[in-house]
Amino acid sequence: MSIKIAIQGIESYFHHLAVQKLFPNNNVTLMPCDSFDKVTANITNLSADFGVIAIENSIAGSILPNYTLIDRENLQILDEVFLNIDMYLMALEGETLHTIDEIHSHPVALQQCKDYLMRVQPHCKIVEGKDTASEAKRIKEGNLKGVAAIAGKQVAEKYGLKILDSHVQSLKEDKTRFVVLGRNTEASPIEANKASLKFILGHEVGNLSNVLQLLNTFNINLTKIQSLPIPEKPWEYAFFVDVLFEDKELFSEVITMLGKTVKELKVLGVYRQNFENTPSHLIENLVHGK
Amino acid sequence: MSIKIAIQGIESYFHHLAVQKLFPNNNVTLMPCDSFDKVTANITNLSADFGVIAIENSIAGSILPNYTLIDRENLQILDEVFLNIDMYLMALEGETLHTIDEIHSHPVALQQCKDYLMRVQPHCKIVEGKDTASEAKRIKEGNLKGVAAIAGKQVAEKYGLKILDSHVQSLKEDKTRFVVLGRNTEASPIEANKASLKFILGHEVGNLSNVLQLLNTFNINLTKIQSLPIPEKPWEYAFFVDVLFEDKELFSEVITMLGKTVKELKVLGVYRQNFENTPSHLIENLVHGK
Repeated sequence: MSIKIAIQGIESYFHHLAVQKLFPNNNVTLMPCDSFDKVTANITNLSADFGVIAIENSIAGSILPNYTLIDRENLQILDEVFLNIDMYLMALEGETLHTIDEIHSHPVALQQCKDYLMRVQPHCKIVEGKDTASEAKRIKEGNLKGVAAIAGKQVAEKYGLKILDSHVQSLKEDKTRFVVLGRNTEASPIEANKASLKFILGHEVGNLSNVLQLLNTFNINLTKIQSLPIPEKPWEYAFFVDVLFEDKELFSEVITMLGKTVKELKVLGVYRQNFENTPSHLIENLVHGK
Repeated sequence: MSIKIAIQGIESYFHHLAVQKLFPNNNVTLMPCDSFDKVTANITNLSADFGVIAIENSIAGSILPNYTLIDRENLQILDEVFLNIDMYLMALEGETLHTIDEIHSHPVALQQCKDYLMRVQPHCKIVEGKDTASEAKRIKEGNLKGVAAIAGKQVAEKYGLKILDSHVQSLKEDKTRFVVLGRNTEASPIEANKASLKFILGHEVGNLSNVLQLLNTFNINLTKIQSLPIPEKPWEYAFFVDVLFEDKELFSEVITMLGKTVKELKVLGVYRQNFENTPSHLIENLVHGK
């Protein structure tokens, strides 16, 4: 049984690596998409079984538009994985740090390497591209002299580029969290201890402390919170939160209670916390009909 | 007395417009910068008196890296303004909707116009650029055929481009919030009723509900909250919140109390809420030494 997984990036090393961590022993067919929108659209229109997208980063924080996408397309978060993002500066054979006057990468990657760029390459023109890997590919294929890309190490290996400098990101421990998305017909895994919720509060913003108090009372711990204004409804707010819990049954009961106190509640996913990056049981569960 | 204001964007229409709304009667010299970093750096190194940067948007939510910049550079939020962002599709004279096969703009602008692009221009290559206005400029100067830019109306007028379509953004009411930044030596304005705070909580994440309860008890209303993981400190969180208050003195007292209950507290700015986009009194206050 081959599983089709949509990822962002023409040949995006990091999304691909996230898939490899989660599904090392499965027969996976990657479906590269050139935007996060297309990843979620391909899940919805049944072209892909699952999608894997970056959702937050230790420096830039949440990738808020991706939360909106999950919500709008009614997808479910089914699993997660965390990758250490190590960035390398790479260019054509024969280049050195001193021959480079232009550096290309994805905007988020450029931001992660900002300190390095300002310190070591302040004279360089910085160009935002679609993807870390495809910028490297463009340098190789176009034989672009004086141009370097910032990307993962395996990108340099794949396109035969020379590594000019390594670990160029500001934080040596730069973790990015990726989530596995599926259609919301999937059951949540048995080993679940984490959930992503969206709720809307009315005009009394003070209500938020009541909601948090309720979660707190039942040992449901907040690990993340983001408010988003609701564009059509001034003074109303949507909140995206991630929570950890120990008792899945108690969690379900609290969620039912929570639904009675907020204006709108949506569970975006109930899954396992996966800091250790152990492989996903998602596919086995599906195959065995669990 | 001429005031130097740093803005992001080579000739960025929207940041420029924000400055015009805030300082219509002042002698302002714009200092265009090619990144948000350079805006804040120019304030810190005294090259600019103030900076104006976008901080949140009704669709994409908070621009989290800009919060991090304000915090890291120890700047103060001194005022705010909200702009309705109306987007136009523009190209060289002689082009029509049917002759376009490539569309350039800033990534956030492209996201705001995503529905239009997928519906009306699904065949077009979408190219992310540095800035809405500079992409339009490039089309004009490079005489780029078959290429359109998405930007504000005045950009089309400035560079003599033809408007192919108007109001191409998804939400007809797409508001972006801009803030005025200054060095943290400035006193907060007398008419202040809004504040931006950053606080860090320790390992007991449940503490957040206590903090919100404290604010709530004293009628300090939360209008925004974002948690950010602290990269070097797993399980500790920084929160960026915006609050509204009525009594400035009471607010100061609550802040003093708050400082005793959290691990770290920083006031990023105390200013007036400015939904009506009335001109800023910031410069008059400075001139008259208030």
